[in-house]
Amino acid sequence: MNKVAILMGSKSDVGVVKEAYDVLSALGVKSEMRVISAHRTPDEAHKFALQARDNGYSVIICAAGKAAHLAGVIAAYTTLPVIGIPIKSSTMDGLDSLLSTVQMPSGVPVATVAVDGAKNAGLLAAEILALSDNDLALKLKEMREEMKRKISEDDEKIFDEFH
Amino acid sequence: MNKVAILMGSKSDVGVVKEAYDVLSALGVKSEMRVISAHRTPDEAHKFALQARDNGYSVIICAAGKAAHLAGVIAAYTTLPVIGIPIKSSTMDGLDSLLSTVQMPSGVPVATVAVDGAKNAGLLAAEILALSDNDLALKLKEMREEMKRKISEDDEKIFDEFH
Amino acid sequence: MNKVAILMGSKSDVGVVKEAYDVLSALGVKSEMRVISAHRTPDEAHKFALQARDNGYSVIICAAGKAAHLAGVIAAYTTLPVIGIPIKSSTMDGLDSLLSTVQMPSGVPVATVAVDGAKNAGLLAAEILALSDNDLALKLKEMREEMKRKISEDDEKIFDEFH
Amino acid sequence: MNKVAILMGSKSDVGVVKEAYDVLSALGVKSEMRVISAHRTPDEAHKFALQARDNGYSVIICAAGKAAHLAGVIAAYTTLPVIGIPIKSSTMDGLDSLLSTVQMPSGVPVATVAVDGAKNAGLLAAEILALSDNDLALKLKEMREEMKRKISEDDEKIFDEFH
Amino acid sequence: MNKVAILMGSKSDVGVVKEAYDVLSALGVKSEMRVISAHRTPDEAHKFALQARDNGYSVIICAAGKAAHLAGVIAAYTTLPVIGIPIKSSTMDGLDSLLSTVQMPSGVPVATVAVDGAKNAGLLAAEILALSDNDLALKLKEMREEMKRKISEDDEKIFDEFH
Amino acid sequence: MNKVAILMGSKSDVGVVKEAYDVLSALGVKSEMRVISAHRTPDEAHKFALQARDNGYSVIICAAGKAAHLAGVIAAYTTLPVIGIPIKSSTMDGLDSLLSTVQMPSGVPVATVAVDGAKNAGLLAAEILALSDNDLALKLKEMREEMKRKISEDDEKIFDEFH
Amino acid sequence: MNKVAILMGSKSDVGVVKEAYDVLSALGVKSEMRVISAHRTPDEAHKFALQARDNGYSVIICAAGKAAHLAGVIAAYTTLPVIGIPIKSSTMDGLDSLLSTVQMPSGVPVATVAVDGAKNAGLLAAEILALSDNDLALKLKEMREEMKRKISEDDEKIFDEFH
Amino acid sequence: MNKVAILMGSKSDVGVVKEAYDVLSALGVKSEMRVISAHRTPDEAHKFALQARDNGYSVIICAAGKAAHLAGVIAAYTTLPVIGIPIKSSTMDGLDSLLSTVQMPSGVPVATVAVDGAKNAGLLAAEILALSDNDLALKLKEMREEMKRKISEDDEKIFDEFH
Repeated sequence: MNKVAILMGSKSDVGVVKEAYDVLSALGVKSEMRVISAHRTPDEAHKFALQARDNGYSVIICAAGKAAHLAGVIAAYTTLPVIGIPIKSSTMDGLDSLLSTVQMPSGVPVATVAVDGAKNAGLLAAEILALSDNDLALKLKEMREEMKRKISEDDEKIFDEFH
Repeated sequence: MNKVAILMGSKSDVGVVKEAYDVLSALGVKSEMRVISAHRTPDEAHKFALQARDNGYSVIICAAGKAAHLAGVIAAYTTLPVIGIPIKSSTMDGLDSLLSTVQMPSGVPVATVAVDGAKNAGLLAAEILALSDNDLALKLKEMREEMKRKISEDDEKIFDEFH
Repeated sequence: MNKVAILMGSKSDVGVVKEAYDVLSALGVKSEMRVISAHRTPDEAHKFALQARDNGYSVIICAAGKAAHLAGVIAAYTTLPVIGIPIKSSTMDGLDSLLSTVQMPSGVPVATVAVDGAKNAGLLAAEILALSDNDLALKLKEMREEMKRKISEDDEKIFDEFH
Repeated sequence: MNKVAILMGSKSDVGVVKEAYDVLSALGVKSEMRVISAHRTPDEAHKFALQARDNGYSVIICAAGKAAHLAGVIAAYTTLPVIGIPIKSSTMDGLDSLLSTVQMPSGVPVATVAVDGAKNAGLLAAEILALSDNDLALKLKEMREEMKRKISEDDEKIFDEFH
Repeated sequence: MNKVAILMGSKSDVGVVKEAYDVLSALGVKSEMRVISAHRTPDEAHKFALQARDNGYSVIICAAGKAAHLAGVIAAYTTLPVIGIPIKSSTMDGLDSLLSTVQMPSGVPVATVAVDGAKNAGLLAAEILALSDNDLALKLKEMREEMKRKISEDDEKIFDEFH
Repeated sequence: MNKVAILMGSKSDVGVVKEAYDVLSALGVKSEMRVISAHRTPDEAHKFALQARDNGYSVIICAAGKAAHLAGVIAAYTTLPVIGIPIKSSTMDGLDSLLSTVQMPSGVPVATVAVDGAKNAGLLAAEILALSDNDLALKLKEMREEMKRKISEDDEKIFDEFH
Repeated sequence: MNKVAILMGSKSDVGVVKEAYDVLSALGVKSEMRVISAHRTPDEAHKFALQARDNGYSVIICAAGKAAHLAGVIAAYTTLPVIGIPIKSSTMDGLDSLLSTVQMPSGVPVATVAVDGAKNAGLLAAEILALSDNDLALKLKEMREEMKRKISEDDEKIFDEFH
Repeated sequence: MNKVAILMGSKSDVGVVKEAYDVLSALGVKSEMRVISAHRTPDEAHKFALQARDNGYSVIICAAGKAAHLAGVIAAYTTLPVIGIPIKSSTMDGLDSLLSTVQMPSGVPVATVAVDGAKNAGLLAAEILALSDNDLALKLKEMREEMKRKISEDDEKIFDEFH
């Protein structure tokens, strides 16, 4: 119930993508990570997307690099919200991944976050689920407060050192 | 209940942004359009974001061009899902708007759609609301089917003419 | 036998894409044009790619714009040569289409031509087919000669006017 | 009196931003460094900007990376001169920060310096303050002379070695 | 006294650059427009910059396109605040002008505004002058209020039409 | 018979380009690697292209960096299929190589793969040859299956660790 | 004697390229315009470059668009100075032409001017020839003076209108 | 007599720029290296350019990074051929330097080589001088032959290893 799927096109991206999993865990949201490639295991992608709603997923996060089609391919087969994480690869500084993910044609949206922005993908999934889960909404708010506290501490330290 | 807010940074963008309103109307989702500028009416932006949940909004769509801060500013004040539409302006072909909207720092996500992708912003909002609204989920599926039928008709015409 | 498929993601691209069909016709190569969208009719794309070899296609040309996934999606389901034409859309000057088409991950190649380079896509398909068709190889050579003659005529005219 | 504020969106940027503080110190201009984030501590940003003039600040320098909204957010709440430093982050080579900072809409200016150009931000603040402070104007001129001497020494060394 | 110079590299840019003059006039700030080219009348640029302070200028606005060196050349000869307006030319969509203006080396700052952002250049000059001119500071604040009123009117109209 | 030529503009690219050779070897396709430069040994390039068909080559792969003209120069002298690999060099992140390779004028196609995409260049050559070689077609299919198996294993591992 | 060749890849560029011819004519330098394509008439390019010195050319100007190889191909066959004019085509805003022309590998230089910068190509050729032609050097100086006079007139007009 | 000046904006670029000096030395052309900055020692730049012809320089090479104005500033004061080397700096991958150097306005040309292309700058200077120096022309031709021999050796080695 309200499970989040986190798909990545290649196992080598797990270091970046794991931040989505971690922030969802910290918020108490169940998520599952998979390696599914739009180009190398397209049947798996197809099957996953078609059954996602029935399998209890509410949001699908897709991370891919270069000609990053994974989010688009999944979005083509489902009307669940699909979040795309463009992964920076060895060339083009992530611009290829970003444009391939965000520039979707009219009719099939992908909610794109920053290049390598896995943590924000997890937070966005949680914000979506929190629309019908007040506890989660509260936890998100607390996480924001905690973030503010941390910045305020940094602020004090820097001000003390440089004024 | 499940209302969508559609904010734009400048009235001159209404021609593009209206597509979000129209697709939501077609799906029976209530939405409201506003002109609120991150830079020119920041207090309005601040106030709107803080009260959005209490005022019955579930999703906030923000459209802005150039150094497009509107979505980010709204997202800074709420944990409701915020969808960003980068608007192409007279220079930079929309790249400035896209990067200003999508490259959010860790902790404050914005769900970014394509440059001028207002229709997809509306659809994404509907997909999010449909997680707890089966009728809406059904309508989204029907809209997809209708889209497929249209492409199939185009396919037949083109094939007939060129083979 | 040695048929070429020309797929486009949207009927609105037919004006550009038709150049591939025309040059193939001029070379006596049978081709067929289809409207198939990676995102809007993914099942059609899937089915087409899986059956392409059995249906007598030797080369598949795919034209698409923005987050241009069509060539990649087709290439994921077949080992026939797939040629990608990035189509320039209303924003990003074709850079999004180009990167989405050409930056394919290791294992699934797409032979990419220039932005809006439909004529070259047709010629490339013909060059591939000509490997086992000497008549076609000859026609390609003649077309090159004709092209040279045309440039030479231009050369004479310009030289006469400006020297 | 004639105090300069130096805000940064994240403590991790202090290494770059400190150059603004250092050059102002060298010129005898009082400045204070703060960590204030447009997205993570927006209320702090809001409050700081509204009170800046009354709190004795004359110029506000803002350094931020990625979707760098800090300078814009501050500028929205004050008519003091706001100087923006786009910070290069791990992706996009600073282009995202630059465009997010410089492409401000009509009505709310940000004086943008080069990517990671903190020293120039400090100098620009000093040039502004020097309009009503002849001593400072003199010091700026001397700093230029010193810079010229240094280049001239380099010139002699290089010429001696390579001619 | 507190005069602003507005230099442009080519008379053909006057349509864009005039917005700086107009907003300064509206604020009661005296300004003068000149055509001075870093590359075509470098001696004029040199002479102007050296004498600017003595000639009563407090801020110098420089507008240029392509390899836009005007602001940098002026800044090299003065420690007055120099504001650069990158002008969009027929190619490169203003990116060349922007980078040529903003990416100044350490030691010689240029306060860069958006591509074609002449109105903001004028406002920035006024903000600088307003540090020692309370009447001007008040007028800037009023102009902001007027801007807010205009946006609020737009907001009401759009809300009335689309809700 | 059905030999593939792999040309590179500089010996220093052999580490990247070798992947084309390796994948062709793994598929049992004979290939030969050469160092031929469009700019430094243009006669060699010219001669090679003119004689390629007679010398038993069916497909020519060309790898080059920066102003990457090698593929275009070869394509100008032959109607054999020419595959271009843009090589990332020390500046411009491969964008220069990509545009120089892919943006060919009408009449002379180059089948371009991703920046540094040597393995895909080899696979594309094999797909072309497989049109008249059923054994090779089978091997390509098996290679795809093997690739799927590997991704599926990665999928299981990741799922086991993160769910 | 001291003749300049002006080559263009396509007759359609004559409107832009003619400015090189015109400025050379105005300076009394003999030049000749040709249509020679690196990709469509490579033998012609080859032959032209090899014989250029013997045929009395001192400088060769090459104008081409997209994957603009003409200057590079000519430079590969001669050690005469080769000037490249990147021509803006229908996509990519000239960036492809610029990078294809300027990013030459070590050993084979091309003197590149601005996108569509034909007049400057002509002037650069004249500057080169003027090293051994004092009359031409004088005419170049006069042309500069004339240019200054024109800017000064513009300056007066603009100043008169806006001060 | 026929001396070449090599100016760099900052001593830190000497490692790259030295390649111009070295290739000119190898060709027996006298050259001198200087550190002169368009922004930090503008008077030096001005003076150097005005006296360059009288001081026996025939060609001026200018290397600079970021908002690279050095070549343009020198070209503004002389009609000697000016060659620009865009230097890659810590951000923007050299694109800023390239556009600042090459996109010169009509009337004042700069002969631009590749980013960090110092060796080609030296060769281009030599090609220009060789128009009136047959010995130098011969040496340039020999250098090309030597280059070809080196590539041919690489070619043999690579072919031997991979066929």
